Amino acid sequence: MTSRSDISAVRAALATQAVETPSWAYGNSGTRFKVFARPGVPRTPEEKLDDAARVHAHTGVAPTVALHIPWDKVDDYGALAAYARERGVRLGTVNANVFQDDDYKLGSVCHPDAAVRRKALGHLMECVDIMDATGSRDLKLWFSDGTNYPGQDDIRARQDRLSEALAAVYERLGDDQRMLLEYKLFEPAFYATDVPDWGTAYAHCLRLGEKAQVVVDTGHHAPGTNIEFIVAILLREGKLGGFDFNSRFYADDDLMAGAADPFQLFRIMYEVIRGGGFTPDIAFMLDQCHNIEEKVPAVIRSVMNVQEATAKALLVDAEALAAAQRDGDVLAANAALMDAYNTDVRPLVAEVRAELGADADPVAAYHASGYGKRIVGERVGGEQAGWGA
Amino acid sequence: MTSRSDISAVRAALATQAVETPSWAYGNSGTRFKVFARPGVPRTPEEKLDDAARVHAHTGVAPTVALHIPWDKVDDYGALAAYARERGVRLGTVNANVFQDDDYKLGSVCHPDAAVRRKALGHLMECVDIMDATGSRDLKLWFSDGTNYPGQDDIRARQDRLSEALAAVYERLGDDQRMLLEYKLFEPAFYATDVPDWGTAYAHCLRLGEKAQVVVDTGHHAPGTNIEFIVAILLREGKLGGFDFNSRFYADDDLMAGAADPFQLFRIMYEVIRGGGFTPDIAFMLDQCHNIEEKVPAVIRSVMNVQEATAKALLVDAEALAAAQRDGDVLAANAALMDAYNTDVRPLVAEVRAELGADADPVAAYHASGYGKRIVGERVGGEQAGWGA
Amino acid sequence: MTSRSDISAVRAALATQAVETPSWAYGNSGTRFKVFARPGVPRTPEEKLDDAARVHAHTGVAPTVALHIPWDKVDDYGALAAYARERGVRLGTVNANVFQDDDYKLGSVCHPDAAVRRKALGHLMECVDIMDATGSRDLKLWFSDGTNYPGQDDIRARQDRLSEALAAVYERLGDDQRMLLEYKLFEPAFYATDVPDWGTAYAHCLRLGEKAQVVVDTGHHAPGTNIEFIVAILLREGKLGGFDFNSRFYADDDLMAGAADPFQLFRIMYEVIRGGGFTPDIAFMLDQCHNIEEKVPAVIRSVMNVQEATAKALLVDAEALAAAQRDGDVLAANAALMDAYNTDVRPLVAEVRAELGADADPVAAYHASGYGKRIVGERVGGEQAGWGA
Amino acid sequence: MTSRSDISAVRAALATQAVETPSWAYGNSGTRFKVFARPGVPRTPEEKLDDAARVHAHTGVAPTVALHIPWDKVDDYGALAAYARERGVRLGTVNANVFQDDDYKLGSVCHPDAAVRRKALGHLMECVDIMDATGSRDLKLWFSDGTNYPGQDDIRARQDRLSEALAAVYERLGDDQRMLLEYKLFEPAFYATDVPDWGTAYAHCLRLGEKAQVVVDTGHHAPGTNIEFIVAILLREGKLGGFDFNSRFYADDDLMAGAADPFQLFRIMYEVIRGGGFTPDIAFMLDQCHNIEEKVPAVIRSVMNVQEATAKALLVDAEALAAAQRDGDVLAANAALMDAYNTDVRPLVAEVRAELGADADPVAAYHASGYGKRIVGERVGGEQAGWGA
Repeated sequence: MTSRSDISAVRAALATQAVETPSWAYGNSGTRFKVFARPGVPRTPEEKLDDAARVHAHTGVAPTVALHIPWDKVDDYGALAAYARERGVRLGTVNANVFQDDDYKLGSVCHPDAAVRRKALGHLMECVDIMDATGSRDLKLWFSDGTNYPGQDDIRARQDRLSEALAAVYERLGDDQRMLLEYKLFEPAFYATDVPDWGTAYAHCLRLGEKAQVVVDTGHHAPGTNIEFIVAILLREGKLGGFDFNSRFYADDDLMAGAADPFQLFRIMYEVIRGGGFTPDIAFMLDQCHNIEEKVPAVIRSVMNVQEATAKALLVDAEALAAAQRDGDVLAANAALMDAYNTDVRPLVAEVRAELGADADPVAAYHASGYGKRIVGERVGGEQAGWGA
Repeated sequence: MTSRSDISAVRAALATQAVETPSWAYGNSGTRFKVFARPGVPRTPEEKLDDAARVHAHTGVAPTVALHIPWDKVDDYGALAAYARERGVRLGTVNANVFQDDDYKLGSVCHPDAAVRRKALGHLMECVDIMDATGSRDLKLWFSDGTNYPGQDDIRARQDRLSEALAAVYERLGDDQRMLLEYKLFEPAFYATDVPDWGTAYAHCLRLGEKAQVVVDTGHHAPGTNIEFIVAILLREGKLGGFDFNSRFYADDDLMAGAADPFQLFRIMYEVIRGGGFTPDIAFMLDQCHNIEEKVPAVIRSVMNVQEATAKALLVDAEALAAAQRDGDVLAANAALMDAYNTDVRPLVAEVRAELGADADPVAAYHASGYGKRIVGERVGGEQAGWGA
Repeated sequence: MTSRSDISAVRAALATQAVETPSWAYGNSGTRFKVFARPGVPRTPEEKLDDAARVHAHTGVAPTVALHIPWDKVDDYGALAAYARERGVRLGTVNANVFQDDDYKLGSVCHPDAAVRRKALGHLMECVDIMDATGSRDLKLWFSDGTNYPGQDDIRARQDRLSEALAAVYERLGDDQRMLLEYKLFEPAFYATDVPDWGTAYAHCLRLGEKAQVVVDTGHHAPGTNIEFIVAILLREGKLGGFDFNSRFYADDDLMAGAADPFQLFRIMYEVIRGGGFTPDIAFMLDQCHNIEEKVPAVIRSVMNVQEATAKALLVDAEALAAAQRDGDVLAANAALMDAYNTDVRPLVAEVRAELGADADPVAAYHASGYGKRIVGERVGGEQAGWGA
Repeated sequence: MTSRSDISAVRAALATQAVETPSWAYGNSGTRFKVFARPGVPRTPEEKLDDAARVHAHTGVAPTVALHIPWDKVDDYGALAAYARERGVRLGTVNANVFQDDDYKLGSVCHPDAAVRRKALGHLMECVDIMDATGSRDLKLWFSDGTNYPGQDDIRARQDRLSEALAAVYERLGDDQRMLLEYKLFEPAFYATDVPDWGTAYAHCLRLGEKAQVVVDTGHHAPGTNIEFIVAILLREGKLGGFDFNSRFYADDDLMAGAADPFQLFRIMYEVIRGGGFTPDIAFMLDQCHNIEEKVPAVIRSVMNVQEATAKALLVDAEALAAAQRDGDVLAANAALMDAYNTDVRPLVAEVRAELGADADPVAAYHASGYGKRIVGERVGGEQAGWGA
């Protein structure tokens, strides 16, 4: 493993880490079968920011919060940004939503009807306006567009429509703004999704230009897909814009990052670091649904899981690994990687957190703080935030 | 292919076919992202029966309607049964629902808390009471029970609790009543589902006795699972109780039966027939969600797809197939099966429908009838039926 | 369905079809568990051409034969081409093989050792030399390169090496020659494959230029992948070079094309036609292993399956489909596609074959010809062709 | 985590562990594309035992070696057993092979031809004879039987034939002998495998009686299958006979146990321990192919991986876990499990090995021993062992 002298470099790198938490993770969510409401869930964007600020206070590495429009729509985004700052966090990526209006039954920017496409494009433009107001760098675009039945619509024509909408949004971006294009294998579309894989997202982003980048949601792949390979390829092509972290056993389960396959998360972070992607140019976001577990501590745990995976990846003895790879020594090379993975990095990240003024044991600190009980008591009445609001 | 003289036997068999349609297919449904409401959707169990009666009138082979409790709860089930009879259909399988109350967040009959288990069991018992009132033969049990995270609950203790509940319900069944136990790989549980595969359902049913049978939902398997093999095995073991037909490209997509892989549906029906399962002892039900398409004609199409697959399966030249199998002639045996599959059976099933007093072209007849437009005009106000109501 | 007047256009299109059969399909093949030898299997490239010529004679649409080097290495390729011509077929695509030498244990063009990479590149160059001699247009490149264990080698460095090799081969191509780059999810590499998906192949081909095109092997995808979507995208990007047809239930099963999912093959051919890909610019090849079935009739059946899928795809009523798509009528659009699929096109393709001077029932004609028995009698002694020779 | 006083119990449990290594893991293996031979590979069963003895000497927990007949056929099994004993190991499970004769192209005990079935049964009986001679307890049965094409053979008739053969072998077993029935999703059969899942194996074993038990090969499942659930169920039913450990990213990759998903291996071992399966009644075997890596150290690493997963599973704080589960505290329950998984157990298992008289660092000790170099020098000439010999 990495020598003692290098440990301080690892620690320094970890102190620079920034994981963005999503405002919607603090609200209610569920499956098509049931959304289980939880007492204490935020009712306003401000309350979501309060929760996110707790996550940052305890972990020290979650300084920004992603917004979802219209779920986080407010009259005054400047005021919202100030509210966030006062609580020690900042507004981050703006996520567009073109999948929850009745008009979008057959798609949004890929819809066969030009009027629906115009409406969807209008929303995307509005999101850039909001970015101007919040100072957000990134617009994250996920399209639920697709078809459920063979023949339902023309696959290629839908690409043409998609292309047109993306070009219009790209044109509208400011100099310091980017577009992050997300892909997803399936759901809610069940036959063909219009951006189903990294290749499709990549082809569009390539055509658009430097400000268009691909975002990798770790739950959006076919079974057996090697996600870290995609990460390595996109970094090599200069087209990786960021991550939506979560974990899955089956489909887009949206479980806590690192919960289903911690070794995979480690391998992904290893490729990020190896490919020069551990920089602010790559957005490290969570995108999760805490359907049955308490939400704030679930986000804390997820942030910690990303942090621990990063620590392990940073600990890989690059020299030993490279030497074994050069020699074609399969077992030694694998062992070099596994040595880092098998290390218990919890003491190390606890130290890092202490240095950052956060808590050695963030979950325990959260529970000790009484915050969870307080919000249950205070947030009574009103309408709880959820995917629909 | 089957000789001319045998065609009349095929036609006679097809005339006996009965596909049960689910009341909930006529209501609204969707994904976790959005339920798109559709004008004209039923607001009451009676209106669902009206729609189901249209499906039967046009196809001639959909004589019964499955109920879902509490979605189809009424004060007087005798009156509901009479209402159905007047419209030419009958009440069928009763489906229990122990997944939509807030209490069921961590499970129903497998919940760690005995009080929740009692409540769930009470609902199952109530369903048998309803069967007594409706004269339904089958109680269909699908449990969404499971866990999202490793460690969340004890896998084995949950089996013990499941076992206890099933035994209590089994005990309550009347002499002519059965319990159909459904399995499902995942969703809404994402780590471990308590009845995830046919083996688990089979083990429980075996222990319970003859009135407990396994039901195969065609959308509930892992990728690559050979469903017709399971059908053949369960028939051999005398443990196949019925089907929930639908189709899928990815997960439990609940698309129209036969829409995603018509060849698979044919192979399933072939094993049903070969294994002696084309009898009233096996319940052939649909379980689908028409999220974006018009519901009544979607059900009609699904019934037709099952019918066409059955016709093709009946057309297999059993003698030629058996001879080629005996000879180990791989290509000839495969060709014997494919010969039937490649046949256009639409004229044949049109004749069968005509004989049954239904329509040669059910979809066209439905549209010509003006029913679809009429319900849009008439069903205004009230609350549309859906998964939540 | 398509009107009567259009049927002649369909018939004319079918008469132009060309499916390339692979020389190795005529030899022995198997799984890692066992290669079952079959009497009568070719021992030389010439005998493979004899078999391929029978397939063309009976079907009328299999005019070319793909070679695999070194399996089909001969001293005089001009003589081999003449031999083919005399039998009514032509030499087609040249397939390189950089996976069966002991040197290639850790890869070929991506190997960590530059000497192995040079050797592999030398073989690729030799293949282009052979193309010069045979007059072949296409060089098909499939790399088994990859790693079995995380850490075994550097994913990104391997891409750099791959890139370098591809550039060198591209440079060597003549004006009328092309490079078809194949991708494959896994096998024989089990952790990371160096060209695992269409996106990776596309990114390389894009960089190389117009003469580099992606080839889609229908068995090389993750479960749930929508292959016809990839076809549509690659055609839109001008980067689809051809197909390796075969079929699969699980992994790269290499069964007869159309055997596992005939509906999928139809959907693929529909997108080919819709996207303007039914031209000689796209190479329609088979790549199959007839492990347990008789080889020549298995190839005949596969060619027929491709032909029938094409016929159905050509029969789609494009106008009706487009109208339903424009109206957002999901069921009508799906029905327009299914109407063509459900048609029994066997009489139609039989007519086409008759016009081409081939046989109405190619399999029956093959068996009637006595060829299968003859080769069993004649091809005694020598070493049978197989994957290893 | 487990308290200090409990650690000694963990250590004691680990000292009783026994992992059986397979004789064939020491020989050459590969994919259908290529078997890469490696210098120093054993040429005889005795040389395989030599290698296995090294694994046990270094790890202390691999005391038995599984045989594969006919690959390990010898004239005098008593002498072979004595040879093993002298080297500090014992002969273990006998594995039958009914997939590598030309007769088995269409199956063995499920073959349509009774003569082939008789031959296969004869081999199985011979394996029991060998068990009598070696004193082996377990006969492991894996059948490659299945079909590649729909219609190829009758699925149900094949079950009848299978049933008949199993009954005959069961009858032949001695009082202290068992039959372990293995299942596998696919490969080498590509359409339907005759024992494809645990349910099928379970149904047969249940009918046969107590001496028939199911064996779980961790690489033999469909994507997304929860293997530890199957383990829990089979233990609950008293029908788990043992494991074939290996790991996989895609299909039956046969990589080193714990290499692809160490968290899964931990979860499996947790269910083993929780279900009372950490006893000699359960056979813990490896079944792997070291296609590209050095074989003896690969087996050592695999044994260590199983050992480390077991250590972590033993460290789970059962009380804390049970309390959190009882409370329905999803996050706390998951955290209790993860706490053990995240522990670096390498120092602990090193201590255990030291106590057992083995090596703290087995891989380093193996390399330091010079054994690997010695066998390369000594094992020259002769025919290397492999899957085919």
